[in-house]
Amino acid sequence: MPAGERPGRHMAAEVHEQPAVWQRILADQQSIRDIAARLAAARPRFVLLAARGTSDHAALYAKYLVEITHELPAGLVSPSTLTAYGARPRLDGVLLIAVSQSGHSPDLVRTIEIGRGQGALTLAITNDALSPLAQAGELHLDIRAGREQAVAATKSYTAQLLTLYLLLVHMRGADWRAVERVAEWGRLLLDQDGTIGIIAERYRFAERLVVTARGYSYATAREAALKLMETSYIAAQAFSGADLLHGPLAMIDPLVPVLAVIPAGVGGTAMLPVLARLREARADVFSVGHAGAVAASSAGLVLPEGVPEEVSPILEILPFQMLALHLALARGADPDAPRRLSKVTETL
Amino acid sequence: MPAGERPGRHMAAEVHEQPAVWQRILADQQSIRDIAARLAAARPRFVLLAARGTSDHAALYAKYLVEITHELPAGLVSPSTLTAYGARPRLDGVLLIAVSQSGHSPDLVRTIEIGRGQGALTLAITNDALSPLAQAGELHLDIRAGREQAVAATKSYTAQLLTLYLLLVHMRGADWRAVERVAEWGRLLLDQDGTIGIIAERYRFAERLVVTARGYSYATAREAALKLMETSYIAAQAFSGADLLHGPLAMIDPLVPVLAVIPAGVGGTAMLPVLARLREARADVFSVGHAGAVAASSAGLVLPEGVPEEVSPILEILPFQMLALHLALARGADPDAPRRLSKVTETL
Repeated sequence: MPAGERPGRHMAAEVHEQPAVWQRILADQQSIRDIAARLAAARPRFVLLAARGTSDHAALYAKYLVEITHELPAGLVSPSTLTAYGARPRLDGVLLIAVSQSGHSPDLVRTIEIGRGQGALTLAITNDALSPLAQAGELHLDIRAGREQAVAATKSYTAQLLTLYLLLVHMRGADWRAVERVAEWGRLLLDQDGTIGIIAERYRFAERLVVTARGYSYATAREAALKLMETSYIAAQAFSGADLLHGPLAMIDPLVPVLAVIPAGVGGTAMLPVLARLREARADVFSVGHAGAVAASSAGLVLPEGVPEEVSPILEILPFQMLALHLALARGADPDAPRRLSKVTETL
Repeated sequence: MPAGERPGRHMAAEVHEQPAVWQRILADQQSIRDIAARLAAARPRFVLLAARGTSDHAALYAKYLVEITHELPAGLVSPSTLTAYGARPRLDGVLLIAVSQSGHSPDLVRTIEIGRGQGALTLAITNDALSPLAQAGELHLDIRAGREQAVAATKSYTAQLLTLYLLLVHMRGADWRAVERVAEWGRLLLDQDGTIGIIAERYRFAERLVVTARGYSYATAREAALKLMETSYIAAQAFSGADLLHGPLAMIDPLVPVLAVIPAGVGGTAMLPVLARLREARADVFSVGHAGAVAASSAGLVLPEGVPEEVSPILEILPFQMLALHLALARGADPDAPRRLSKVTETL
């Protein structure tokens, strides 16, 4: 890093900038509304999502929104089937959405190009309106997060979530105001930064941990694990609460820290039997969730009250971003420039 | 365990029984052909797969086969969207396949029931023809692996893979004989058991490791990681080679063992840039794959020559099953009865 630059300063600034980014997105929803009208007019029968890394977790969130609120079947594309194996599926009636911060990964650009050629309606969602991916899609949405300098993506992730949320709300002509107070809720969570710093000390020497959630929040578990891996080099494993019971539970013992995401709502309720099984394993469970879930855990952080479940992933990730930042700094790493990674990852 | 029973004896017997199971499946393909004809006649536009645990990795393999060889869009269902969130998507034109060894998990039974009610053609693939899941599907296929007694699934997994392979081959009216020699190849690999036992000693004290592959073999990486987690309680993380470069690569160093699956073919070729990045990180890479890939790794096990890439996952998993068994025994665990798990896992 250039002399005089504090490790993690970009990540810290970008984490704390998120409520302002969200307010900017909420203040001008016209381009999202326009694209939503185009998607609604196409009446897709099926939605495919393509993404990598952090953006793949935004795609996973969108998959749940599509399946639950649009009652449409959805799938996550394995780009290699198109790019490496050369498959050319029939895609009429399909809406294909590619999500990428940089818009530069060649496999996603090719996926959109092939999808467009096979009859899909294609939409690229990026943080760079001039990127190859933005140019390749028939439609494009800019998440307007502003330039992200830390390699560890934070504000671009929640900007993707909020943009996808609004897009899918407007596409079905619903009321967007469930998310109106999201910036206010986000600030309440960011105010907990000092508390998170103290919590981080418990994980200072952990070599592995498990993150678990169900439903919409499964995306949070996946993204929290990736953030911890790429900044703190900890072996963080994410499991849906159901999948955890189908095998990985065997490796849980009091020496494997568990982080659980348990917001109020259907997904959180479905986690309660998982919490019970974790207690039987005498696991140390730190929950980010509603007051009841935190009370049933070893420790935790309570989410603001009144957050609709489908909005919660935009907020739940904030404590984990702060945790990853604190842990990375404590362990001597620089989350702005993790070893071996660059901001733009190009895969074929 | 009952007095006098040797730990892992069921798993060992079932691992070595696999070629015989495959020969039984190959010898009588009539029921698979009959179901394949029904599926082909329905001309599905989209394929959804639902499964948990090991069976979910068989579903992942089938997703690649559907996307590549049938050129149809496909997706893995998140059962909670139907069972917990109550979504009722329109599913006409959809083929919905549920895969489960036991056929007993309530969430999969409900998924098939709801899918059938919403217009999907439903197929249950189980190892118990009298199970609730087998009864719930409009169509049913028995994988005929015989009773599996070890909690760690082995023969039921490869029987699922072979059944799905044959089903999808017959559905498109193709020649099944690419898989004709699979039992012979399998025996060659099982003969390496002594070598695997020696290799296992290198991982005796590892607390974490990474398994990686691309394409069809990504299913192998996922299943290998699960087998190691549930038998040896090691924190085994599986990544597609592409996803590994989008973040988790940061945590790789010479102290994090990497297991790579690199068969001859498209997926293996796509792994070569990943191998190069792992060498830059001075990672210890053990490859199961073609001779060239093994030569480019720290160590490895060469797969039999002439195996078609799409058949390879049925074989590649054998060394990992043997590795999991050896490691579990060395670490004092019983893979027939891992702590906290039972053979039938019921999730809602």
